[in-house]
Amino acid sequence: MYTENAPPGRVAAALSTDERWMTLALDLAARGLGRTTPNPPVGCVIVQGEEAVGLGFHPRSGEPHAEIFALRGAGARAPGATAYVTLEPCSHHGRTPPCTDALITSGVRRVVVAALDPNPAVAGCGVQALRGAGIDVTVGVLEERATRQQAGFRSLIVRGRPWVVAKYAMTLDGKVAARDEGNGAVSGAAARARAMTWRNTLDAVAVGSGTLHSDDPALTTRGVPGGRDPRPVVFDRRARSGPQGRAWRPGSVLVTAPDTDTSAFEALGVTVVRAATPLEALTGLGCLSISSLLLEGGPTLLSAVLDAGLVDEVRVFIAPKLLGRGLSPLTSPARRMHEAQQLRDVTVETLGPDVLVIGLLSDIPCL
Amino acid sequence: MYTENAPPGRVAAALSTDERWMTLALDLAARGLGRTTPNPPVGCVIVQGEEAVGLGFHPRSGEPHAEIFALRGAGARAPGATAYVTLEPCSHHGRTPPCTDALITSGVRRVVVAALDPNPAVAGCGVQALRGAGIDVTVGVLEERATRQQAGFRSLIVRGRPWVVAKYAMTLDGKVAARDEGNGAVSGAAARARAMTWRNTLDAVAVGSGTLHSDDPALTTRGVPGGRDPRPVVFDRRARSGPQGRAWRPGSVLVTAPDTDTSAFEALGVTVVRAATPLEALTGLGCLSISSLLLEGGPTLLSAVLDAGLVDEVRVFIAPKLLGRGLSPLTSPARRMHEAQQLRDVTVETLGPDVLVIGLLSDIPCL
Repeated sequence: MYTENAPPGRVAAALSTDERWMTLALDLAARGLGRTTPNPPVGCVIVQGEEAVGLGFHPRSGEPHAEIFALRGAGARAPGATAYVTLEPCSHHGRTPPCTDALITSGVRRVVVAALDPNPAVAGCGVQALRGAGIDVTVGVLEERATRQQAGFRSLIVRGRPWVVAKYAMTLDGKVAARDEGNGAVSGAAARARAMTWRNTLDAVAVGSGTLHSDDPALTTRGVPGGRDPRPVVFDRRARSGPQGRAWRPGSVLVTAPDTDTSAFEALGVTVVRAATPLEALTGLGCLSISSLLLEGGPTLLSAVLDAGLVDEVRVFIAPKLLGRGLSPLTSPARRMHEAQQLRDVTVETLGPDVLVIGLLSDIPCL
Repeated sequence: MYTENAPPGRVAAALSTDERWMTLALDLAARGLGRTTPNPPVGCVIVQGEEAVGLGFHPRSGEPHAEIFALRGAGARAPGATAYVTLEPCSHHGRTPPCTDALITSGVRRVVVAALDPNPAVAGCGVQALRGAGIDVTVGVLEERATRQQAGFRSLIVRGRPWVVAKYAMTLDGKVAARDEGNGAVSGAAARARAMTWRNTLDAVAVGSGTLHSDDPALTTRGVPGGRDPRPVVFDRRARSGPQGRAWRPGSVLVTAPDTDTSAFEALGVTVVRAATPLEALTGLGCLSISSLLLEGGPTLLSAVLDAGLVDEVRVFIAPKLLGRGLSPLTSPARRMHEAQQLRDVTVETLGPDVLVIGLLSDIPCL
C-alpha cells in the first residue's frame, strides 16, 4: 500500500510517541463508525507515564462521549496524565455536559487533539476552555487521518449532505458487468468481504432502480461480526413498481421525483425524499442525518451523481480478468482525456487476486 | 508488489545462497534481452568461496555465450568454483563450440542451472555432459523466474511464434482513449518510461492500422540509456494508404492479407507477412525470428489477437482518474462474467500515480 502525495519517507517513517497513542485513539474511534451519527466517531486514550490507563470511544448517539469512558477507566490515575482525543473536546452543554469540564476536573496535565471541531459555533472553543484551565494543549497530531475518519460528520456539519463514496468492481478491461446477465461476481471473496465492512461503517447504502430490478439486493451487512445494516436508499425517479424487493423495509429511503405517488411506500414505513436534482437528493438525505453514503448501484446512478460533482471518494476493485464487451462503470458524457477527473490521495492495495484503488475527488470538508 | 499463487511467505522469505547468486546471473542475463534472438538471454556467475570471480552474459547473437565471458573473467580462479547459469549450457556445436566443454576444461566443481533448454534436440544433454565429466549439477534454482525471462526464446523454439505481450493504459473507469481525439496520455511519466523499457527488451512492437493513422507512432525506444529500437510491425489488412508514416522504415514488417499489393512497401525495404488469420500472422513473425512481440495498438488489433487465444501476457497501466464515455480496451464479443479470461501470476505495482497490473494468460512454453 502506498499513499500518493505523501512526503518522501513519511509512510516508512517511525511514528512519534504522540502519533502512536493517537493511532490507538483513532482505532478506538473507528469502532463507532456508522453508529454515532449525527455525532462524530471519537476515540480517547489517557496515558500516565508510558501506560494507557484509560480507553474510550463514542459508541453511539445518546451514549457518553469518548473522553468520559476513558476518564472512567483512568479513575484516580488521571491526574497528571495526557489525554489523546481524535476530535476537539466539546465545550458546550448538549445532551451531555461538556467534555472539557470532565477533562479539567480529572486533573489531566496535557491534552493532545487530532483535529478541531468543524462546527463554526464551537471550533476552537474546546481548546480555549482547556488552556484557560492551565492544561497544555497540542492540536494537529495525525490530523489528516482523523479528518478522513470524520469525513461524514464533517460533511454533514459543513455541507449539510453526506460524504459520498462511490464503489464499483470492474475487470481489467474496465467492465462492471456482462451485457446479457445480472451482475455476476466480478471480484473475489476478500474484496467482497472488504465491501461488507464499508456497509457496516457508512450510514447508508444507495442503488438505483436498475440495480434494484436486476439484482434485488438486500443491502444488508453480511459476514461482519457485530455488524449493523446501513440504511437502504433507492434512487427511483418514477417508482412505478411499488415497494417490491428486499431493499424495502421500514426506515428505507426512496429518493424520487417531486410528484411521484409514494403512498404504497409510506404505508410500509419507507421515508420519501423528493428531489429534482442529485444535489437536492443528497441534501434531503442530509436532513435525515445521513452523514455518509455508499453509492453501490449501477452506471446510471453513479454517473448522475458524479456529473453533478457530488462524488467525494471512489473505491474501485479491479479483478485481473478480461471480459470483452460489457457495461462500463460510467455513462458520463465524453470529455477529453486531459479533462478526466483526477483522484487525489490515492492508495493501492491487493486483496486476494484483486486490486483495490481508493482516492478522493473532494477535500475533506473543513472550516 | 506481490505475486499471486506464491506459496505463503515465499516472497518475503530470505533467498538461499544459490538463489542469491542465480538472481545476479538473471540480472546479468536481462542485459541481453531484445538483443540475442534467436539465441536466449543467458547470464552466468562463477563463484569461488563467497566471491564472484567471473560474470558474463550473452550480449547478442553471434557473440560468445555467457559462460565463456564468465570463465574468461574467472581465469585461473575457476578450478573448484561453482558456475551459476540461467539456462542449461549447450552441449552441441553451433556457431560456437559447446559451453559444456568450456566448463569441463575450466575445472569448475559444480554447476547450478536455473532451467533446462526447451529445445527437444538438446534438452538435458548439457546436464548429462557435465555429470559425465564428474561435475556436480543442480537444476531448477529460480526456475520460474528464469523461464519467464526466457519466454520469447521458449515460445519461438516450442511454438514457432513470438511470446505476445499486450499492453494498454486505461483510466479507473476502464477507458483507453476519449472518443473525440487521438490518444491523449492516459498514464503518467513513470508509467510511460516503464513502457519504453519494454520496447527496449522485446523484439518487436505492433500496432494496427487504426493506431497508425490516428497517432502516427514512431515505435522507437526513447529515454532508455543504451536502448535499441524494436522492430516495428503494422497489422493492416488492406494497406491502402501506402508506406506513409513514421513506423515505416527498412526492416519494418507489414502484416497484411494474402492478396494485398505491397510493392510500395517492398520498395522501401519493408518485410511483408501475408496472413489470413492472427495465428498465420504470428507464425509469419516467428519465421522472421521475432521471439517476443509487444502489442501496443488499439482495441481492434488487441481483441483480434486475444480472441484467437494468442495473447500470452497482459500489462495494464491504470491511471487514477475518471473519464466517462470513451474507448474500452477490448471489442471482444460479449461473454458471461464467469467466462472472463482469468490472468495468472498477477503482480501489482505502483508507478507514480498509476498502478501497473501484469499477468499471464498462457503458460511459459516448456517441453
